[in-house]
Amino acid sequence: MSRVLVTGGSGFVGLPTLRALVGGDDEVHATTTRAEPPAVPAVSWHRLDLADEGQLTELMRRLCPERLIHLAWYVEHGRFWEAPENIVWVERSLRLLRAFIDAGGRRALMLGSCAEYDWTSADGPLRETDAPIAPATLYGIAKDSLRRLADALTTRQGVELAWGRLFFLYGPREPAGRLVPSVIRSLLDGVAAKTTSGTQRRDFLHVEDVAGAIAALLDSSVTGPVNIASGQPVAVSEMVDLIAEAVGCPELVQVGALPDRASEPPLLVADAGRLTREVGYRPRWTLADGIADTVGWWREQRRGAERAAQEGPASEGRPSAGARLA
Amino acid sequence: MSRVLVTGGSGFVGLPTLRALVGGDDEVHATTTRAEPPAVPAVSWHRLDLADEGQLTELMRRLCPERLIHLAWYVEHGRFWEAPENIVWVERSLRLLRAFIDAGGRRALMLGSCAEYDWTSADGPLRETDAPIAPATLYGIAKDSLRRLADALTTRQGVELAWGRLFFLYGPREPAGRLVPSVIRSLLDGVAAKTTSGTQRRDFLHVEDVAGAIAALLDSSVTGPVNIASGQPVAVSEMVDLIAEAVGCPELVQVGALPDRASEPPLLVADAGRLTREVGYRPRWTLADGIADTVGWWREQRRGAERAAQEGPASEGRPSAGARLA
Repeated sequence: MSRVLVTGGSGFVGLPTLRALVGGDDEVHATTTRAEPPAVPAVSWHRLDLADEGQLTELMRRLCPERLIHLAWYVEHGRFWEAPENIVWVERSLRLLRAFIDAGGRRALMLGSCAEYDWTSADGPLRETDAPIAPATLYGIAKDSLRRLADALTTRQGVELAWGRLFFLYGPREPAGRLVPSVIRSLLDGVAAKTTSGTQRRDFLHVEDVAGAIAALLDSSVTGPVNIASGQPVAVSEMVDLIAEAVGCPELVQVGALPDRASEPPLLVADAGRLTREVGYRPRWTLADGIADTVGWWREQRRGAERAAQEGPASEGRPSAGARLA
Repeated sequence: MSRVLVTGGSGFVGLPTLRALVGGDDEVHATTTRAEPPAVPAVSWHRLDLADEGQLTELMRRLCPERLIHLAWYVEHGRFWEAPENIVWVERSLRLLRAFIDAGGRRALMLGSCAEYDWTSADGPLRETDAPIAPATLYGIAKDSLRRLADALTTRQGVELAWGRLFFLYGPREPAGRLVPSVIRSLLDGVAAKTTSGTQRRDFLHVEDVAGAIAALLDSSVTGPVNIASGQPVAVSEMVDLIAEAVGCPELVQVGALPDRASEPPLLVADAGRLTREVGYRPRWTLADGIADTVGWWREQRRGAERAAQEGPASEGRPSAGARLA
């Protein structure tokens, strides 16, 4: 039995990752900045602000985790692509990695992004071994530079580094402002969902499959970059249609009502061969089932909120688990 | 009059850089970790450990420098190429740059290295615009990644960034273990200086010209990478011969007495066109004069040490300026 430490454990990807890990052989520890982290059976929570070097060193010395999954990052919707906080998170991630190595860590898994690849030349599945790296956003540049530095450091220190490159995610608990939850919430409200033409194709993966892939990658001996993706391109308009179908109101979708953005590349899809063949992970959710699951989660959120409203002020002290986590 | 802040001001490059700056229009401030920094007329010293975020923020808020020259780095001879401290210095440099920008900074000059370039393919002058970037050492990777991150951040924050790429340096006060001072000291001791065949050619620049180029680059409006180099390749054996000539004991040089290292690239020379044409700086020292100057400085050091020894213990409280700085 070895010990794994997960940063950002209470986040959108973090929580399902913890659930995917607890079935395995590891003793699972997770960090959070929240005063009341969500209860996950068999997970030990640790309050840790990664800005605090003293706290970090103390926790690493105490736990001496053999394995690390670093998920924490700045992800505020609409801002994260170009926010200077990306630089702060490069600093924090490097310090975390050094503290992990200094405490005897053996294998680290960190998260990269499809934003590391050159989007201007992407016209087929992006493969880890030969797709050009040319990030255009501060987020992509930060992840790319962190990978170069983390790879160089771990190689020299005899520590393994796996680098999971996320593509497009969806699923329960996704922050409300993003595409999938914003369309779902509009439609559940009976409000028309206006979108661009949605012809651009993306690689979407249900967050439970993202979590499953992360857990499988950690348990494998694969090092270096691995796309965490489905390998299946789907048009954004198709995604919106699936949502409308799941909600049961296709008439409320107004594809093409918003102007297309010139900067949107037509195709961003992963070659998922490394994940499926080398890591041995195959996604479990079909897109239709995954969307239905996500719509169901949002419906449940509403019912919870309605019940709370009916029960009146007395219930305010016991928000639903979903509301607390969202 | 604007304010410039120089980190690492008491170092091998730092001190001549301060001297090059004080003739100009800037109010010159310098940081050091030393309790007794060397006196330089018109320079205000500030004790600052760049590991200490609180100290850093406080100094930046108080000074609000418009311009920054960041020279501090981990440079321990023999270790710095692959030391994990390079990662620490990426973190510190990013934090410094953010604090500078947050305090209203307008133009930053940071130091890169010829180690950012691909040494395996180098067969002519390395030009900033088209020589392949492929660092092989942790030092080179750290500098390369820092440049990518600093460039991305400053571009988005409307701050100018000049990136001075140092090649090979020599001159007074160079740390004693490196090539030029170690040969000089052997020969001054009357001990044979054993070297490799020394056929590899390098681009050497006297540290006062390095400092002059840094000051000129700061005063220019040039942004992006600029080689800080002579553009003149010289064989290492030729360098050793020049030293022996300056010391006056060519018979003590044993070129070829040490085995060549297979990893040494035959040619590392800069295209110095950007420095001379765009920045407008031309090196002042010829190699022969620069070597003579350096040998003279080491002779002076010895005389100082001999005088101190003759004067006895009473003089211990007043070490010579050179001894204190070396």
